[in-house]
Amino acid sequence: MHYMTIAKEIKNDSFKLASTEGSVRNDALREIASSLQKNSHQIFAANTVDLEIGEKEGLATPLLNRLMFDEHKLSDCINGIKDLVSMPDPLFDTLMKKKLDNDLVLAKITCPIGVIGVIFESRPDALVQISSLCVKSGNCAILKGGSEAKNTNRVLFDVIHAAGTKAGLPSGFAVLIEDRAGIDELLKCHDSIDLIIPRGSNSFVQHIMSNSRIPVMGHADGVCHIYVDQDADIQKAIPVIMDSKMQYTAACNAVETLLIHKDMAEMIIPAIEDIAKGKIIFRGDEKAVSFSGDQWGNASEEDWGKEYLDNILSVKTVDDISEAVSHINHYGSHHTDTIITENEDAAEFFMTNVDSAGVYKNCSTRFADGFRYGFGAEVGISTGKLHARGPVGIDGLITYKYRLMGDGNIVADYATGKRNFKFISI
Amino acid sequence: MHYMTIAKEIKNDSFKLASTEGSVRNDALREIASSLQKNSHQIFAANTVDLEIGEKEGLATPLLNRLMFDEHKLSDCINGIKDLVSMPDPLFDTLMKKKLDNDLVLAKITCPIGVIGVIFESRPDALVQISSLCVKSGNCAILKGGSEAKNTNRVLFDVIHAAGTKAGLPSGFAVLIEDRAGIDELLKCHDSIDLIIPRGSNSFVQHIMSNSRIPVMGHADGVCHIYVDQDADIQKAIPVIMDSKMQYTAACNAVETLLIHKDMAEMIIPAIEDIAKGKIIFRGDEKAVSFSGDQWGNASEEDWGKEYLDNILSVKTVDDISEAVSHINHYGSHHTDTIITENEDAAEFFMTNVDSAGVYKNCSTRFADGFRYGFGAEVGISTGKLHARGPVGIDGLITYKYRLMGDGNIVADYATGKRNFKFISI
Repeated sequence: MHYMTIAKEIKNDSFKLASTEGSVRNDALREIASSLQKNSHQIFAANTVDLEIGEKEGLATPLLNRLMFDEHKLSDCINGIKDLVSMPDPLFDTLMKKKLDNDLVLAKITCPIGVIGVIFESRPDALVQISSLCVKSGNCAILKGGSEAKNTNRVLFDVIHAAGTKAGLPSGFAVLIEDRAGIDELLKCHDSIDLIIPRGSNSFVQHIMSNSRIPVMGHADGVCHIYVDQDADIQKAIPVIMDSKMQYTAACNAVETLLIHKDMAEMIIPAIEDIAKGKIIFRGDEKAVSFSGDQWGNASEEDWGKEYLDNILSVKTVDDISEAVSHINHYGSHHTDTIITENEDAAEFFMTNVDSAGVYKNCSTRFADGFRYGFGAEVGISTGKLHARGPVGIDGLITYKYRLMGDGNIVADYATGKRNFKFISI
Repeated sequence: MHYMTIAKEIKNDSFKLASTEGSVRNDALREIASSLQKNSHQIFAANTVDLEIGEKEGLATPLLNRLMFDEHKLSDCINGIKDLVSMPDPLFDTLMKKKLDNDLVLAKITCPIGVIGVIFESRPDALVQISSLCVKSGNCAILKGGSEAKNTNRVLFDVIHAAGTKAGLPSGFAVLIEDRAGIDELLKCHDSIDLIIPRGSNSFVQHIMSNSRIPVMGHADGVCHIYVDQDADIQKAIPVIMDSKMQYTAACNAVETLLIHKDMAEMIIPAIEDIAKGKIIFRGDEKAVSFSGDQWGNASEEDWGKEYLDNILSVKTVDDISEAVSHINHYGSHHTDTIITENEDAAEFFMTNVDSAGVYKNCSTRFADGFRYGFGAEVGISTGKLHARGPVGIDGLITYKYRLMGDGNIVADYATGKRNFKFISI
């Protein structure tokens, strides 16, 4: 009940935010950036409290690293906001305009989605990224962060909220939810919330998808592949495989299955085994295992399609590129898949036929990221095909409406042939 | 089980269709158009059978009219297909391309959604429109038409399928489902079907939305409004109101609620009452009723937000444009809403603040239609904000994927600062 009332108020404010000029939203972003800088000591102090609690409660080192919000991360956040300010206004943009008749004009104009609920993990920098993307795109943000970052998030939010309202944004432009129970209440607010972006474990995303009528943008699984083609350059293949698997194993864009053309297996497998010794645990199909020196484990049917999020890699040999593509489309999660090849035709075939948000040639799957795509920031990565796909930046947070401007025009005149449509683009 | 196997086969064919050249898809459309012409007698004969059965079973005249597929409708369909041929290929279109680094290029390329299930009503011309839109956009179509049109649909489908495969499309480019039970089985095929477009009653669409994990594009309700502003031209207002309500009352884009600025009520209400005598049943708020000569019925809270799909119109007076906009955003279905005004500022305020797929000025809500927007044809109208909104033509049937082309690039080099992103648009 409580959250439904809050969500309705935010919905009302979302119409005000949707009609603010780009200059107002940019002023707010500038004010937010400078307020974050001014209040840095307070932010770092809150983060120290979170880190101390985290250490006491025995949080693992990678989680503590994600939780840390230091001078370096603050500076990244502020630079990200400045990048957003320099980007053109994504709102009120005319995507299409045409005369339907001399006195009847149709225009397709971008506008915000409305109210977006984002549930994110422990990284406090996510709060800054998401709320600044929402300000730039004119969307109200309902933010729910990880409880480990509670103190840091509260200070960051207070600074951002004060700066935004000071610059003229309506109070509901951003709201922080601090109790986990709030999520289930929010999922019922389909009249007030237009979109949910969950960032978290597979089971958490599934839970949200099956418990809400609100559209969900995101992805549950990240089962990414690398296919080493028969025309691959091994000098490129090995570092790309290592980077895709090991640069950050817990990421959704880390590779989980390596597919190798049968003629390349004898060369690639010993080479990768040599470099990955003590780092990666391999699970191969029969043929892959036969080329391994260290008696790799056998991959079961379950391994194909599994998101390890760990230093494990399944390896399968394939007869040709078609088998590789079929495997990826069948077992993959339509996230990001790479071909290693020097053959342009093979690359073209792979990139056209693999049904994923990202199809790569000769580079690491870890490039699937809003910052690395030059979006300045991202709210998440989408494997859905309706609207945003891949890393979701500003473009993924806007939609459009059709404006039709007439002079008393009625359909009956066109239905009866008294008048005829012109369809002239202007 | 049966339909799951069929859906999987279609999924496989969808990858073949997705990579066909635009010229192949255009050839198929030309072949379909000429085959429909050649087989017109067979089509009309099948339609006569459906019409005879319909008459025997006591179908209402409007339904019989929709069911009729004559020379005139065939010619409309063939012209629609020719329009599609003349449009540019929506696939393989580069929406964005930039150098991330000297040897790393990112491109955002359009591609089909994949397999689309469309459930449509009795109009056989819908089968032709939908399957030709899907051919042009490279999507496989699973078609389920109304049982009243069973014979016509079968002949139309056979002609289209033979022509399409003759021109080189894979067999699964279109499939006809003839039993209603098939729908529930299809709803379970979330691995093979990418999108469901239901066209039918509110309860039917709701049923599909709550019984499938497959994304649904469309709308349940069509509660459209006309707001007569204090600066309205009454000469434009009256015909627009009549056309919006009466040109076709059963359509989702027919107006259901008329909002009138309090200062205009005294002029508009007697005028519209006079013209609509014996045609429209009015239900007004207290003030509206007070200006009516014929003792209009009183509108209850339920009337606001009701889709009559009949010759009934609810009428409410409002104090100002803000009240009108709030009413529409609260009770409306975000479909299509019109302001009647000569005041540019009022029009701008209305069109920016009304949260609907179509926001109109001085014209009928009945213009919300793919043909009238110049899309050649439509598969439906969407009130969703993710991706397609409003009448859905070809653009609504495509998505994109990101292609990233490197030369062995790894993320670690950028994460460690060994290399820096360039982000140059090319």
